[in-house]
Amino acid sequence: MLKYTQAASAHDAIVRGMGEVLAQGRTAFQEYLFFRSPEAGVCIVLDGDIQSCESDEAMYHEALVHPAMLLHPEPRCVLIMGGGEGATAREVLRHASVERVVMVDIDREFVGLCREHVPAWSAGALDDPRMELRHEDINAYLPGCSERFDVVIGDLVDVQDFDSPAGMLYGRELYGRLRECVGDDVVVATQAGALGAADVSGHVHIRDTLAGVFGHARSYGMVVPSFFHMWGFALATSKAPPTTDAELASTLCDRARGRGLELPAVGVDALSHAFTLPRQIRQQLG
Amino acid sequence: MLKYTQAASAHDAIVRGMGEVLAQGRTAFQEYLFFRSPEAGVCIVLDGDIQSCESDEAMYHEALVHPAMLLHPEPRCVLIMGGGEGATAREVLRHASVERVVMVDIDREFVGLCREHVPAWSAGALDDPRMELRHEDINAYLPGCSERFDVVIGDLVDVQDFDSPAGMLYGRELYGRLRECVGDDVVVATQAGALGAADVSGHVHIRDTLAGVFGHARSYGMVVPSFFHMWGFALATSKAPPTTDAELASTLCDRARGRGLELPAVGVDALSHAFTLPRQIRQQLG
Amino acid sequence: MLKYTQAASAHDAIVRGMGEVLAQGRTAFQEYLFFRSPEAGVCIVLDGDIQSCESDEAMYHEALVHPAMLLHPEPRCVLIMGGGEGATAREVLRHASVERVVMVDIDREFVGLCREHVPAWSAGALDDPRMELRHEDINAYLPGCSERFDVVIGDLVDVQDFDSPAGMLYGRELYGRLRECVGDDVVVATQAGALGAADVSGHVHIRDTLAGVFGHARSYGMVVPSFFHMWGFALATSKAPPTTDAELASTLCDRARGRGLELPAVGVDALSHAFTLPRQIRQQLG
Amino acid sequence: MLKYTQAASAHDAIVRGMGEVLAQGRTAFQEYLFFRSPEAGVCIVLDGDIQSCESDEAMYHEALVHPAMLLHPEPRCVLIMGGGEGATAREVLRHASVERVVMVDIDREFVGLCREHVPAWSAGALDDPRMELRHEDINAYLPGCSERFDVVIGDLVDVQDFDSPAGMLYGRELYGRLRECVGDDVVVATQAGALGAADVSGHVHIRDTLAGVFGHARSYGMVVPSFFHMWGFALATSKAPPTTDAELASTLCDRARGRGLELPAVGVDALSHAFTLPRQIRQQLG
Repeated sequence: MLKYTQAASAHDAIVRGMGEVLAQGRTAFQEYLFFRSPEAGVCIVLDGDIQSCESDEAMYHEALVHPAMLLHPEPRCVLIMGGGEGATAREVLRHASVERVVMVDIDREFVGLCREHVPAWSAGALDDPRMELRHEDINAYLPGCSERFDVVIGDLVDVQDFDSPAGMLYGRELYGRLRECVGDDVVVATQAGALGAADVSGHVHIRDTLAGVFGHARSYGMVVPSFFHMWGFALATSKAPPTTDAELASTLCDRARGRGLELPAVGVDALSHAFTLPRQIRQQLG
Repeated sequence: MLKYTQAASAHDAIVRGMGEVLAQGRTAFQEYLFFRSPEAGVCIVLDGDIQSCESDEAMYHEALVHPAMLLHPEPRCVLIMGGGEGATAREVLRHASVERVVMVDIDREFVGLCREHVPAWSAGALDDPRMELRHEDINAYLPGCSERFDVVIGDLVDVQDFDSPAGMLYGRELYGRLRECVGDDVVVATQAGALGAADVSGHVHIRDTLAGVFGHARSYGMVVPSFFHMWGFALATSKAPPTTDAELASTLCDRARGRGLELPAVGVDALSHAFTLPRQIRQQLG
Repeated sequence: MLKYTQAASAHDAIVRGMGEVLAQGRTAFQEYLFFRSPEAGVCIVLDGDIQSCESDEAMYHEALVHPAMLLHPEPRCVLIMGGGEGATAREVLRHASVERVVMVDIDREFVGLCREHVPAWSAGALDDPRMELRHEDINAYLPGCSERFDVVIGDLVDVQDFDSPAGMLYGRELYGRLRECVGDDVVVATQAGALGAADVSGHVHIRDTLAGVFGHARSYGMVVPSFFHMWGFALATSKAPPTTDAELASTLCDRARGRGLELPAVGVDALSHAFTLPRQIRQQLG
Repeated sequence: MLKYTQAASAHDAIVRGMGEVLAQGRTAFQEYLFFRSPEAGVCIVLDGDIQSCESDEAMYHEALVHPAMLLHPEPRCVLIMGGGEGATAREVLRHASVERVVMVDIDREFVGLCREHVPAWSAGALDDPRMELRHEDINAYLPGCSERFDVVIGDLVDVQDFDSPAGMLYGRELYGRLRECVGDDVVVATQAGALGAADVSGHVHIRDTLAGVFGHARSYGMVVPSFFHMWGFALATSKAPPTTDAELASTLCDRARGRGLELPAVGVDALSHAFTLPRQIRQQLG
């Protein structure tokens, strides 16, 4: 039987049954594998890490995108860093106020593979007239960028070693450049590794880097069953966000209702409680 | 390297690193294994299924016990079905109104092993003067029982095949007998299998059986990281519970505050949102 | 990481690292997978069982083919049952006396896949003018067959359940039909499952069926490193073969030298000792 | 289910079902694990490597001991380096000419564990009056040793990294000291890692070190089913051994018969062919 094995922590692993391999190879930037899981539908792997699975990619992408979009009173201009599957763009474009989305994903070939093998994940978003899709290094793009972004979504590969080249994607230097090019009212959200494992230093590193650069950062989490983990995200703002979980939840709910936004996978209610992490996990995050 | 492998679904598996084996063998009723996991501390396995792990047993047991205890206005007399580790009793006894707890766990030897190897999990609860510990079959105990219980907690092994002998632990017959012996204001909670997998028919079976017998039943969930799943629970009442998630959350929070109850692992806030499942999971549960 | 897992016994398994998947799918008859193993080169899997691997397919195919070919004084006409990779035909054709080879492999598509992905394994054999390649069921072919074969090589998929349809490939009925259509001097060899595991009943079943039909049958074995086992074969004759291992070894060596046959993978010397199994394994085979 | 996973090569692994854990812990020198395998009986693991299994430890120990014992015309005094299970001593003592055996195994506690849990493996050998059992470092023992040994058997843990401290157990310095203290007619045999894998550099290193020190060294192999490999051994002599495989086999057979030695697991015949490795493996060994 074919199996896909992925480390779940330093000592534990997830072994997934594999059906058909849809695509496998190496672009100029990364190794990719698209396979069909009997439980989770098409799964996309980059450099040995599951990126998302058909069965609950919407839970992941809704949780990544909407807290930031809802915390901004009227997001017009949005930057997506990474986001190759196109599902992040799909979620961003559901906010009617959005006039322009710049998606910077270095890997043109991977974006093409996603269009071919999982077209429903972008659902036309990449061809939306509001969309500008750029295939370049985010580190090269940011310095010359003179746009004001209201919201920035980081949908880049997860990193274990923040001193590696990939670690720059979550580094102070990149976020510093981002801080310079975006406006003062920016809301930034990024994926930030699994929560609940014994070692959550990766999540803490990302959140604290964001806090250092933008002034305010919070952790939140959402169960993503196909990841076999509660997944972690970090949200940063320059202006102080609502202070209590209850106020934050109210703001998210009220704005979602005001914008007529439904979240088919997560639901507005569950999303609004995503900042209320179990106490033990919160304490572990410091 | 020693590994402990457990099915996570029909096609997927969790492989855990194992350190020391603390105890391994077979009682008159089940096979047991106590091992030390580098990530999750001591883990207890019965008949091939992880029961709980040191790192987050409190998240599991708080989630199992407190919603039911808080939904009852003044729980005095509590029945625990199973609960061998003693951690369920520990949580029940944290409510000051409790005068008497009957714990019926068939397996005297397993309870002894837990006292020996993980004494902190029961934390003295099994020796509390309010506690009556009976080692007999719950099916034999219930018919002759003439006590009125305010709250019943089902902490029995998870079952995949509800037509097997173990499946009787979640069957209409057992719950029917329970219904006869307890009072009309009873609140019942039980573990009810993992949520989020492709197949949640086990959870639905338990919840619907409870609903059929008691009149009202709801699903709720809590992330338990060492299970690599959001774990599911079912809560049943004869009287209608608060109708909206928000009312339910308020009731839980208010009563926890009123009783001075703190939940060190889950926290009162996260527990109060445990009924607000992500929409996709809720729909899957029907 | 991609892994290929295969049962090695009722309780043990081999987990192989996988590189590129060259081909994967289903023909009209079986599921196939061609993948590149970092250790063993291209590996071919049918219905979940490794068939052969680039690194040592020659050890397997030499051991399968040459004892039977050498025990016949002058093999002219050879029947191959199965043999889709074409490597069995390659080995058969190395005997200069061979005038005609009939290879009956039901699965035209699989033979085509092997030609495409591992052309070196057939090394032109399938296009040799002495070769007749028939894509039909061996059970359908045999009854109408009026040829006299000197040697028959069974290179069919391994079978665990001899009562299944695939089990017919090793059944008394098929071998009986074979016995009728071939001459009295036939030498028959077939793969016959792994040796050395706790359960060798599969091997014994095949060998004893052959003995019952042809009169004489012997077990032999060859280490095939990529199988992680000593692989078993059974050889049957109507006439009594040399009685001692030493005589058998001499016959094999003398004839190989007489025919100028070299065996690049196994070598003539090691092959000639293949019938001298370790005593414990011999006793296990009864 | 409990599993024991062991690397079988750089990319492949063997996963074994585990029953009862008989003993697990750490002596002053190594980590040990004794577990019951459903297929192979009691298995002994040291520092993560299977040492031997009940089902075929005799195949391993007969193959390790008897070629050296038989190549010496009359072995009286034998040195065992390592050999903690006591099974190597058991085999050595089956030669009637043996007057004295010195077994130097550093780990007194491990030898005690083997006496306790697998007493049949030593079968009383450790209490034989001809036996001297010393618990000290072989590197400390050799320099002061003034005995002449006829045969030396190396039954030490397998080593992957010959530059590690454990690598000294197979190093030129240790074998050099051994050469000085033993006589000129010594025959030395040692386990020497698995054969047949892509990387056999470990085996070659050991055999070539022996050849450099003693003058002559040869590789041989025996299938050990519970190892899922053909296991490799190296045999060294100061005097030239028989030159052809056939002469070597004759010598081994004749002497075994002369001494009335039966080999219940391997058999004399299969043992006598252990030097006739498959050609491809022989070429790989250089």
